[in-house]
Amino acid sequence: MSEKPFVSESRFRIRYAETDAMRIVHHSSYIVWFEEGRSEYMRQVGFPYSRLESMGYYLAVTEVKARYLRAAKYDEEVIVRTTVASVRSRGVTFRYQVLRAADGELLAEGESVHVCIDDDGRPRRLPKEVTELIGRYA
Amino acid sequence: MSEKPFVSESRFRIRYAETDAMRIVHHSSYIVWFEEGRSEYMRQVGFPYSRLESMGYYLAVTEVKARYLRAAKYDEEVIVRTTVASVRSRGVTFRYQVLRAADGELLAEGESVHVCIDDDGRPRRLPKEVTELIGRYA
Amino acid sequence: MSEKPFVSESRFRIRYAETDAMRIVHHSSYIVWFEEGRSEYMRQVGFPYSRLESMGYYLAVTEVKARYLRAAKYDEEVIVRTTVASVRSRGVTFRYQVLRAADGELLAEGESVHVCIDDDGRPRRLPKEVTELIGRYA
Amino acid sequence: MSEKPFVSESRFRIRYAETDAMRIVHHSSYIVWFEEGRSEYMRQVGFPYSRLESMGYYLAVTEVKARYLRAAKYDEEVIVRTTVASVRSRGVTFRYQVLRAADGELLAEGESVHVCIDDDGRPRRLPKEVTELIGRYA
Repeated sequence: MSEKPFVSESRFRIRYAETDAMRIVHHSSYIVWFEEGRSEYMRQVGFPYSRLESMGYYLAVTEVKARYLRAAKYDEEVIVRTTVASVRSRGVTFRYQVLRAADGELLAEGESVHVCIDDDGRPRRLPKEVTELIGRYA
Repeated sequence: MSEKPFVSESRFRIRYAETDAMRIVHHSSYIVWFEEGRSEYMRQVGFPYSRLESMGYYLAVTEVKARYLRAAKYDEEVIVRTTVASVRSRGVTFRYQVLRAADGELLAEGESVHVCIDDDGRPRRLPKEVTELIGRYA
Repeated sequence: MSEKPFVSESRFRIRYAETDAMRIVHHSSYIVWFEEGRSEYMRQVGFPYSRLESMGYYLAVTEVKARYLRAAKYDEEVIVRTTVASVRSRGVTFRYQVLRAADGELLAEGESVHVCIDDDGRPRRLPKEVTELIGRYA
Repeated sequence: MSEKPFVSESRFRIRYAETDAMRIVHHSSYIVWFEEGRSEYMRQVGFPYSRLESMGYYLAVTEVKARYLRAAKYDEEVIVRTTVASVRSRGVTFRYQVLRAADGELLAEGESVHVCIDDDGRPRRLPKEVTELIGRYA
């Protein structure tokens, strides 16, 4: 058990396609960034999500929440910080913070809840290797 | 005052671009559909969102939540049902249900919280006309 | 053989998420609309693309072109007109026009070239039923 | 004048949201990557596109073409190589190659044509500073 949870960081620039007619980032883009965050998290703890899929497991999203605090603009660099809030035998909950890289300002935060399913969409236990690995970092 | 809240309905087919490698609709697509839902709601109550924008007002999203119950697939028809959960002088909360048109199965539900801002991103009171109109239907 | 090619029409409103910081529709959205156009085309000639996929065939895109003539805005209604430019044993070329519904103004036009592949990504002949059907309407 | 044209490189991982039900990257995602490519190009030659916009100029897309050679998958790293094919007083043409980082395989290539417009959508000459700068690298 770690004393504090592991936090992964993804860093990228905001794409023009991610903005909308309010001249700021469209709120649905953050949902995609959260996903980018948990991809990076899995990669950094040593079990890329693509490997999980190649084993026939998927982490289906059952819930997502986002709270938007400040607007972000095209070309700004952002950092997505991802942690695991909890891990269960059949699922996992990730938590996210999106920060503006230039000044560390918190732009948005959120959470996503996932259940493990197989190729046929049936609920499955996460591979033990994954729950143990994530559990160690959570 | 209406006895029960007004519910708008949008109906459309799922686009291929809205699916992902799990062969189902990507969870961020529902966030876009919610937006489509509230666009239709505003249009149906007689105050299209585009008119609000042409007056210099915007409904910035401060919070969004979605709960996913069943997967949806390319080419299926869906219905988005939208209601107003509450309206305040400075904002409004919409609630959504996404149903599969073929059998009425509930696919997802969610909520979005909005504040009214002006061209410079400052919080503003919603035009009285809008709060009254929405208030009548909520 | 028909004397003139069949033209399908899809009609929908522009979504806010499809706009960008120039306050107009992002150019990549038209590529998605073209896809929506050929989906509707296949449905209207009686062979929905989803049926093709359920038989293990896919129409992979090998080329896409778009020419943008006028900007489009959120909430405007557009019409996508789709025709088949040519059909081959192993592929098909679709052609598109995007019009503003209000005044019939041409907003963009384009083309997409497709090859038929199977589940493993290998080139395949289109089912004869499909080439014949599309050939009749092209 | 440079002897050979400047080539910028953007490098990033494929997002899950960029895939579709064929389990590969959706063809419209490449159009967004091209944009990412020219953003990086402008940044690298010393005139970020965001600076152009802050001066009241925009590079509207009038044409885009893409040719798809090989499929790409979630989590693969790609490189977008961008060059300027030509620069005119009122516009510029960019050219792109998308490569899989792991083995340098060419996945797609394309081109986009742009005209310079102002806040009101009227054609304008590109700032001389920009045509000179890009001209030097083209």
